[in-house]
Amino acid sequence: MAAFEIPVKVRFGDVDAAGIAYFPSIFNMIHRVFEDLWEHHVGIPYSDLIVGKQLGFPLVNSNVDFKSPLRFGDEPRVVVTCERLGRSSLTLRYQFFLGKELALDARMTTACIDMTRLKSCAIPEMYRGPLLALQADDS
Amino acid sequence: MAAFEIPVKVRFGDVDAAGIAYFPSIFNMIHRVFEDLWEHHVGIPYSDLIVGKQLGFPLVNSNVDFKSPLRFGDEPRVVVTCERLGRSSLTLRYQFFLGKELALDARMTTACIDMTRLKSCAIPEMYRGPLLALQADDS
Amino acid sequence: MAAFEIPVKVRFGDVDAAGIAYFPSIFNMIHRVFEDLWEHHVGIPYSDLIVGKQLGFPLVNSNVDFKSPLRFGDEPRVVVTCERLGRSSLTLRYQFFLGKELALDARMTTACIDMTRLKSCAIPEMYRGPLLALQADDS
Amino acid sequence: MAAFEIPVKVRFGDVDAAGIAYFPSIFNMIHRVFEDLWEHHVGIPYSDLIVGKQLGFPLVNSNVDFKSPLRFGDEPRVVVTCERLGRSSLTLRYQFFLGKELALDARMTTACIDMTRLKSCAIPEMYRGPLLALQADDS
Repeated sequence: MAAFEIPVKVRFGDVDAAGIAYFPSIFNMIHRVFEDLWEHHVGIPYSDLIVGKQLGFPLVNSNVDFKSPLRFGDEPRVVVTCERLGRSSLTLRYQFFLGKELALDARMTTACIDMTRLKSCAIPEMYRGPLLALQADDS
Repeated sequence: MAAFEIPVKVRFGDVDAAGIAYFPSIFNMIHRVFEDLWEHHVGIPYSDLIVGKQLGFPLVNSNVDFKSPLRFGDEPRVVVTCERLGRSSLTLRYQFFLGKELALDARMTTACIDMTRLKSCAIPEMYRGPLLALQADDS
Repeated sequence: MAAFEIPVKVRFGDVDAAGIAYFPSIFNMIHRVFEDLWEHHVGIPYSDLIVGKQLGFPLVNSNVDFKSPLRFGDEPRVVVTCERLGRSSLTLRYQFFLGKELALDARMTTACIDMTRLKSCAIPEMYRGPLLALQADDS
Repeated sequence: MAAFEIPVKVRFGDVDAAGIAYFPSIFNMIHRVFEDLWEHHVGIPYSDLIVGKQLGFPLVNSNVDFKSPLRFGDEPRVVVTCERLGRSSLTLRYQFFLGKELALDARMTTACIDMTRLKSCAIPEMYRGPLLALQADDS
């Protein structure tokens, strides 16, 4: 297994009146990491996937444990693994670590959609290898 | 049971390049409904709760099914019920209906926090009645 | 003159670590008021304008004075007037009042765009009357 | 003069239904660049400035020309120069370039505030040198 890892940073615009990341901003961070994964791990900029290939990945389910707060200036390391790769759906797990501590644990299931017809479609073969490489050994 | 119901509106700033509500914006809508529930159902403006009473409700878990997309201009009706009211935690269910169709089903568990000490604390007695009134008969 | 007036509310998600509205959120409020103006004053939902009529109003210039902070829970009254209505461009002024105090004064100039060709186009005649009605007597 | 330069990226969450950066998102980008400038040019993480030094920089005026749209996937280069450094106020200019083309030209004037007293205060001497270094030769 080779997890995809990337640091993110909690910005001024992400925090609430208590100085803690507002959860809609955390979901925005998760999407940014998803975009980074396509570009840096799978090998295609996410904008090319959407605009060029007309593929979209709408969210079907999200299940997130918020274990400890992310504060302004924190730079959690996000570790992405693949929990399930179906024909036309994909479940990724995003773990946010502050040092060794797991601060946030998110499972995000997305469908693959042909945006010209707005119908579910198979995840193209060329992307399956890089996604499968993110599966944990015991999953 | 008396569910709390309120319409929301999918605004231009909420939608993505496909004209569909971007999920971080949906989480922002859920928080706005949470604020409205405190003000219009429990009877205290959410800002008074945070700033005046120094109580906060950080998210502990969120589990959301995105069943059908919310589009620009849609005005879903959000129905809020209470799934569980613990001593210091609260699980609310937010169902977004487009007509009769359930478009989104969210369960959000929050802790109650004393913001001066950043410690878990009991949900004050005066708020428990209105929250219990949101419990479904079969829950 | 009949200005368009509408209250807005500073939400939890709008404020920063100091409890003051983060300026990108204020720009989002301004756009929401622009949408409300189309729906409630001009008489066409903004989503119909964009999706149905394929008209867009990209921003060309914005000039904003931030005179006093908007705090969490504030409900400023926004007064919109028309500073200039050109053939294909529109300058609206948004004044945010907290009681009698002018907290924010924004001038936003937008072009009118045919979104099918992404070219500037004339603001349709039927919308000019309601926009002209928002001109101050001395402008 | 040594301008501060940094690339930014137009993300999925930044664009609207037309695939163009929604202007509140552009203002968020500008603030992120402001944070980067403090950390990478002045030499103090912005969160240390806010939380540690209790200094804030609320916006007083913003004047922005939106010359051409920023699209999903664009990676404009932002060039920041100092237009004016007063005792307690600072005007920075942010120019967004797509290749050689100036897509966006923003002037943002901020006050320096002592956040413990919420009063205007002098920009500390140690930060003035790096900010003055960003002044254009002809300004």
